[in-house]
Amino acid sequence: MTRPLITLTTDFGLEDPFVGVMKGIILGIAPEVQIVDITHSIPSHDVFRASLTLRASHRFFPEGTVHVVVVDPGVGSWRRPILIVTKRYFFVGPDNGVLSMACELEDQAQVFHLTSRQHFLQPVSNTFHGRDIFSPVAAWLSRGVAPDILGERVDTLVKLDFPHVRRSGNTLIARVLHADKFGNLVTNISADDVPRPEGDSPPFLIQIGDREISQLRSSYAEALPGELFSIWGSSGLLEISMNQASAAEALTIEKNQEFRVVLRATS
Amino acid sequence: MTRPLITLTTDFGLEDPFVGVMKGIILGIAPEVQIVDITHSIPSHDVFRASLTLRASHRFFPEGTVHVVVVDPGVGSWRRPILIVTKRYFFVGPDNGVLSMACELEDQAQVFHLTSRQHFLQPVSNTFHGRDIFSPVAAWLSRGVAPDILGERVDTLVKLDFPHVRRSGNTLIARVLHADKFGNLVTNISADDVPRPEGDSPPFLIQIGDREISQLRSSYAEALPGELFSIWGSSGLLEISMNQASAAEALTIEKNQEFRVVLRATS
Amino acid sequence: MTRPLITLTTDFGLEDPFVGVMKGIILGIAPEVQIVDITHSIPSHDVFRASLTLRASHRFFPEGTVHVVVVDPGVGSWRRPILIVTKRYFFVGPDNGVLSMACELEDQAQVFHLTSRQHFLQPVSNTFHGRDIFSPVAAWLSRGVAPDILGERVDTLVKLDFPHVRRSGNTLIARVLHADKFGNLVTNISADDVPRPEGDSPPFLIQIGDREISQLRSSYAEALPGELFSIWGSSGLLEISMNQASAAEALTIEKNQEFRVVLRATS
Repeated sequence: MTRPLITLTTDFGLEDPFVGVMKGIILGIAPEVQIVDITHSIPSHDVFRASLTLRASHRFFPEGTVHVVVVDPGVGSWRRPILIVTKRYFFVGPDNGVLSMACELEDQAQVFHLTSRQHFLQPVSNTFHGRDIFSPVAAWLSRGVAPDILGERVDTLVKLDFPHVRRSGNTLIARVLHADKFGNLVTNISADDVPRPEGDSPPFLIQIGDREISQLRSSYAEALPGELFSIWGSSGLLEISMNQASAAEALTIEKNQEFRVVLRATS
Repeated sequence: MTRPLITLTTDFGLEDPFVGVMKGIILGIAPEVQIVDITHSIPSHDVFRASLTLRASHRFFPEGTVHVVVVDPGVGSWRRPILIVTKRYFFVGPDNGVLSMACELEDQAQVFHLTSRQHFLQPVSNTFHGRDIFSPVAAWLSRGVAPDILGERVDTLVKLDFPHVRRSGNTLIARVLHADKFGNLVTNISADDVPRPEGDSPPFLIQIGDREISQLRSSYAEALPGELFSIWGSSGLLEISMNQASAAEALTIEKNQEFRVVLRATS
Repeated sequence: MTRPLITLTTDFGLEDPFVGVMKGIILGIAPEVQIVDITHSIPSHDVFRASLTLRASHRFFPEGTVHVVVVDPGVGSWRRPILIVTKRYFFVGPDNGVLSMACELEDQAQVFHLTSRQHFLQPVSNTFHGRDIFSPVAAWLSRGVAPDILGERVDTLVKLDFPHVRRSGNTLIARVLHADKFGNLVTNISADDVPRPEGDSPPFLIQIGDREISQLRSSYAEALPGELFSIWGSSGLLEISMNQASAAEALTIEKNQEFRVVLRATS
């Protein structure tokens, strides 16, 4: 009943025809598939950023979705093209860590080295595996071709780890992962890292640059004009925000800049 | 016969996975639906701009289309999530005026406060109702769930009005609504505001900044090089344009800047 | 079995609702069609660029695809709206050369002047034939309406030629067509223009600006840091590239700038 679904996450941008060409290849093999763009604006070659993006978004898609990620500075070299099969999803892309942060959150991951050249576009170029390998493999998967037909089971995988906070006494060393389109600063702090709030007093104090942020708001609109506050973002990570303004501009901090979070004593 | 259709208009941009995530939620509920992006480049929090965009575009979609607009600075606060049902369309979004200019052009509008939490994504966040409320509701609508199952009929609605021209004798006080990608300046002047041209003489003279524009052209290509002219744009509003050049750059006026239009006497 | 497919290539950008509106018109006529964006970021009015983009991408779509290109500075003037039917594809757009470089690579091209106003959106504007003519015609084509119902066979066509290299003795005069998103400089040199490499020595020496480029690499990753090299790009044209850096920034050459390629003697 469900039409198969393929998502695309790349650093290809939207000016060149790369993304359209991938879709042409997919739809030539699997005309019924739905294709959803997660983003094509990953900074060129930024495997870490792509891995975080997939981690933040992949679980909002229905079971059986094929997630394709092509951020691939090693295209045409020794790095392997892989498929990771989990209980709920398929992940297709280069074996450079770009799939690993998402797969870590999924159960029962099996890794396949994509080797079945008859399921690739021929001839395979050395510069565009998004078109020649990952798109056709995703399309064949969506049509029900079994993973062990498409490749060989392997035990190793290049991993990028999610950069968890470090704890030192009652202080967390945290970092800003990136700023979103609204200027919200997404951090690496998850709910497990901090105590639950009790009563009115906020459970932690953020020290970032020369600023202290003590407010934890539950919506943007409840903040005062010009106020910097923290808020639990929609992907489950703490964000530093302003109401209808850009925290990224107000703080001018570097990507990956570390900052301190002082935890309040809990009773 | 007709596959249901959902359009999306947001200020989310294309760099973050917000739009892709909305599509994942929609297609998990309604796998057969077609999703069309109207635009995701509304300036952050610009409810007025989004309302104008929907007004200019919604009527080119087939009957039964569900138009979703998420420009929502009050997300998570008191503002209500609503559905407006008209004779031809469904409109889904926050009750902040973003839907009102389009609905004003449609017949038989009924407003529903979206209250059926079982049709939302659980848990509902306070920061991303595009994902948690508006996407699932649009998907259920496209599958035929009745509006009065999704919410409760209400009588009030936050309205933004289209900024009509003011008339003073034989002069109109008009304004520039925005510049499009080609630098055409879209004004708030519609055909009803000005007399029909008779013979060769243009029916009005535009005075904007320190320039006078007397030519009313019927296509870009008939204009002389470097000439500023007015032309009836494709959404039914008068535009100030140049042939293969940007009127916005030539005139460097402010958004919403007012200007005068002197109407010629008609016989 | 195969769902019909329509591609869109325009200079409309993604900020205005132009592209969404075209899709609304198409899906109102042909609800089952799949629509793929090739790009909407063609520089305004750049017919040459659009023609190159279509040439580089059209062949990766399945047979029967309708390719729509709307880069149309002459909209509303004397220029004809046309349909070109080839053995494998349909091409729809203005008769200004924008379709010609792609069609040149296809067999058995027949040209039709689109004249059947009953298959257009009424009334036809003078400013947006993408919406009023090209979208509905593409949709009707995807539903199987015959080309000779949509227009009249004609023998003439405005042509833009692919800018082939010039040869002078053992030297080619080549040019840079454009830079892609990664800063790769795409040239007009195809495999037919140069000798095949023999042994280790590269078959040609590129002289561009004040630089000489002697390396021909087969993947980005095998290049040294900071090295400028040439590589066969995914669309079959030679590119000048760097590994994880922008050749366009390193060379700062003009679009369409000519350069010399000295061919090595072949045994």
